[in-house]
Amino acid sequence: MKRWETVAIIGVGLIGGSIGLTLRRRGLSDRVIGIGRRETSLRKARECEAVTETTTDLEAGVAHADLIVVCTPVTQIVEHVGRAARACPPHALLTDAGSTKASIVEALTSQLGPEVAFVGSHPLAGSEKTGPQAARDDLFLGRVVVITPADQTSKDWVTTIDSFWSSLGASVVRMPAAAHDRAVAATSHLPHLLASALAVSTPDEVLPLVSTGWLDTTRVAGGDPQLWLQILRDNRPAVLKSLGKFAKVLDSFGRALDEDDADRVLELLEVGKQCRDAVGNRHPSGRGTA
Amino acid sequence: MKRWETVAIIGVGLIGGSIGLTLRRRGLSDRVIGIGRRETSLRKARECEAVTETTTDLEAGVAHADLIVVCTPVTQIVEHVGRAARACPPHALLTDAGSTKASIVEALTSQLGPEVAFVGSHPLAGSEKTGPQAARDDLFLGRVVVITPADQTSKDWVTTIDSFWSSLGASVVRMPAAAHDRAVAATSHLPHLLASALAVSTPDEVLPLVSTGWLDTTRVAGGDPQLWLQILRDNRPAVLKSLGKFAKVLDSFGRALDEDDADRVLELLEVGKQCRDAVGNRHPSGRGTA
Repeated sequence: MKRWETVAIIGVGLIGGSIGLTLRRRGLSDRVIGIGRRETSLRKARECEAVTETTTDLEAGVAHADLIVVCTPVTQIVEHVGRAARACPPHALLTDAGSTKASIVEALTSQLGPEVAFVGSHPLAGSEKTGPQAARDDLFLGRVVVITPADQTSKDWVTTIDSFWSSLGASVVRMPAAAHDRAVAATSHLPHLLASALAVSTPDEVLPLVSTGWLDTTRVAGGDPQLWLQILRDNRPAVLKSLGKFAKVLDSFGRALDEDDADRVLELLEVGKQCRDAVGNRHPSGRGTA
Repeated sequence: MKRWETVAIIGVGLIGGSIGLTLRRRGLSDRVIGIGRRETSLRKARECEAVTETTTDLEAGVAHADLIVVCTPVTQIVEHVGRAARACPPHALLTDAGSTKASIVEALTSQLGPEVAFVGSHPLAGSEKTGPQAARDDLFLGRVVVITPADQTSKDWVTTIDSFWSSLGASVVRMPAAAHDRAVAATSHLPHLLASALAVSTPDEVLPLVSTGWLDTTRVAGGDPQLWLQILRDNRPAVLKSLGKFAKVLDSFGRALDEDDADRVLELLEVGKQCRDAVGNRHPSGRGTA
């Protein structure tokens, strides 16, 4: 496993904190610098040993880094990668942890040029919990991290970023940024939108009767609204397309039930179960079988 | 806590098995008779110590029971309660564990008359796992069980069935059957329908990228399609009404995103989070805060 002398993490929330904690617990880096705006978050990151030192000065924080991981909200990633690229050593590699990729990769390529050593990443390992105090050293274990090299990205950079995520326990998948965005619209952004809509549509007076079904189905609605607003807006066309497809299936379900068409309702329930069971049995984390 | 000399459980799947296991582990009944159609299920129920003896003969199984709990699928409950009521001792109490209540309570009242000691129950403690091998002695711990006495139901029966579920660790809520059905349409049946529709609408090629969001939101779609077909059909009007309400919220969400109305999208995300957080913090099982 490649060891890093100095890693800088910009944004030490759940993801950034978990990266730092895993690097340190696995002995992969001696020096992990947490960079953030708020001293309270940085103090928490130090207290839970996710980082060895902290600073609110982005440029100073990345000045001696070999690897820089930008874990700020999607609307800030382009700015933070750009500033880090201008302040870091020439040999440093840069990546991010944003939930959308096409707009970030495109903006960085046009702003910074192809010589900046950036490879986009998206660890599929979230939680509705936030902040460095929620950091875990097994957050990436068995989880997929998508990396999205552009055509002109150096193969060496891609290999190094791939092995960085692998060293944290993740399973790395490479795909173009646009394909990534279409996929996560269906697997992550649409589920969030449905969970929120279900929570919104549930009358207050029935809430005492919710059980595991409602709790599971709405769980992600507990996520940070500002972060999700940015994600949904950034990936708007793909999310709307996934939503359109879902709405057709839901309409078909509703019509079958309205007409008491038992065969059709059963067919939909069976196709849904087959899909869910197939994923549950082969998801690397095993959580799908819970 | 009231102890029972003999309890008969008709249908020893997850719910029936868990009732038996909890009764035995808590020392609440010496004799628990499991009644079922298939010898293989009955053997599994004996092996996991959910029951002390088993039979495929319903009438013989209930002949000496003080309490009879019918845990078969919703379409069979009326028949099984009716047969048990005609074969059990005069002092025996009867209840069920069906996910819908109005049609069952109405049918039983008209078929058997008010002198039959039946009180409808619905333990809100499911799982997508099935069979007696999934039985747990803490399945009801901190969970809500709704009991739905009719106007003419004896207060003594209601009190006894209430304390039966309480003795298994559940928190009992009493409400009319029709109100129960409207509530669970929103809290259980609609979430199931959405989970299935989401699984159906997810393209196969993106399944390798699913993460906790999709896994949580679709988890209940792994439930038994035949059982859920019966539940959805039995509670059709209330489910369609909840679905209509949800579809309006979803449409509003989709339009706001399509028009890039950030304020409105944020508002919906925030209302959803408030609702989800409120439930997560006060759900007795604590699972909501996971």
